[in-house]
Amino acid sequence: MPKVINPVDISKEENEAKKDYFDRHTPHVYCESKAKKAEKFTVKVTMGKDYPHPDDHDHYIQYVQLWNRQTMLAEATFTAGALGNMAGHVEVDFNIVPTVSMKLSAMSYCTKHGLWQSEDVEVSVE
Amino acid sequence: MPKVINPVDISKEENEAKKDYFDRHTPHVYCESKAKKAEKFTVKVTMGKDYPHPDDHDHYIQYVQLWNRQTMLAEATFTAGALGNMAGHVEVDFNIVPTVSMKLSAMSYCTKHGLWQSEDVEVSVE
Amino acid sequence: MPKVINPVDISKEENEAKKDYFDRHTPHVYCESKAKKAEKFTVKVTMGKDYPHPDDHDHYIQYVQLWNRQTMLAEATFTAGALGNMAGHVEVDFNIVPTVSMKLSAMSYCTKHGLWQSEDVEVSVE
Amino acid sequence: MPKVINPVDISKEENEAKKDYFDRHTPHVYCESKAKKAEKFTVKVTMGKDYPHPDDHDHYIQYVQLWNRQTMLAEATFTAGALGNMAGHVEVDFNIVPTVSMKLSAMSYCTKHGLWQSEDVEVSVE
Repeated sequence: MPKVINPVDISKEENEAKKDYFDRHTPHVYCESKAKKAEKFTVKVTMGKDYPHPDDHDHYIQYVQLWNRQTMLAEATFTAGALGNMAGHVEVDFNIVPTVSMKLSAMSYCTKHGLWQSEDVEVSVE
Repeated sequence: MPKVINPVDISKEENEAKKDYFDRHTPHVYCESKAKKAEKFTVKVTMGKDYPHPDDHDHYIQYVQLWNRQTMLAEATFTAGALGNMAGHVEVDFNIVPTVSMKLSAMSYCTKHGLWQSEDVEVSVE
Repeated sequence: MPKVINPVDISKEENEAKKDYFDRHTPHVYCESKAKKAEKFTVKVTMGKDYPHPDDHDHYIQYVQLWNRQTMLAEATFTAGALGNMAGHVEVDFNIVPTVSMKLSAMSYCTKHGLWQSEDVEVSVE
Repeated sequence: MPKVINPVDISKEENEAKKDYFDRHTPHVYCESKAKKAEKFTVKVTMGKDYPHPDDHDHYIQYVQLWNRQTMLAEATFTAGALGNMAGHVEVDFNIVPTVSMKLSAMSYCTKHGLWQSEDVEVSVE
């Protein structure tokens, strides 16, 4: 069964090839830490920080999902070539409407290297 | 077979109920009219302008797709409740990397009222 | 905006290249014409009859959707290579549970040649 | 981050409510143990054995994915109501074309209870 790879602290990784591998496959969730109840709230999901990921037909990021704990809120699916077939960073902004405090995370799928998770991001809703 | 509903000029529609119906089901594409080749380019897709759409478990916008002519670039899928189960406007920002001039459009699916298309938006790439 | 290509009667087409093109992009729905209410009912969706479709990384059938009139019942998404990267026919069996009579159809997406529809198939439910 | 729930041996579970919960959320992969190289090979994925799962608008199985090790081969997405809004077993037959030996598994998503995995099924390809 597919293993879901958890976030790795690449600053502690000595092997440069592994740093690249872990960084470009790790999704990140960016948003404010506080949201207003029942108002639009933007959540950015990106892939990688320092190392871009290929957008080749046989090797690309096929989807990123936005989760609140065990519940999937939204998913963005990409077609190879949407990033110009060049190495880059997948980036999508989902607009959601929170009603209770959330623990957000992202899960992404690379067609060559499987399933990857982000760190959790806590959002309080007032 | 499902009919894909094309954009309707609701300013010409006298029936208020139909104005509401057409407006809240119509996707819109917003982006700059010029893009720089091989650089990140943000495309916003939203549903409706003046009338919000329900986000009920049995009636919600399940997906919006971003197209360049006959090619799908990306798709955002939503779970009912992602907009707080309140009437609102689906809104997602896709970041793509253009290499040639594009004719963008969006297609969306309402779980009660089928498939809807946006107007085309032309983007020149330099 | 993407055009959805309707079924073409290829027996009337004199151009062999067009016959091939139309055949291998046309989805077909196969099932019994009568279903028992509230019982499992199998619906097969395939692509093409006489001409196989490529399963190349830059040219494959990405999804087939099963529709009842304006309502999508189910969708199967494929990854390039699931058919061994060889020309073939996408084939998936969905099991659904009908409660009222249906007018089924399929819509499919080829990553190079866009959106295609099947003929309708009527199913009475007793 | 969402936890992916691994298969549980429910025969060892004394709590009847838990047996029900684990059984109806567990995907299963059924296929022959041997496949012929480059020929069509049918893989059935179902949810649960003894206990059916609801098909309610706010609680249903949204997708099942078929995996070969870390690679997703295909995914079936369902709309609530495709099983008649009655408790039942999701069931889909994917036809794939193997070229090398496989270790198949399924992953499924319940809109209320998250991500679930099947046991692995090994298939030799000759």
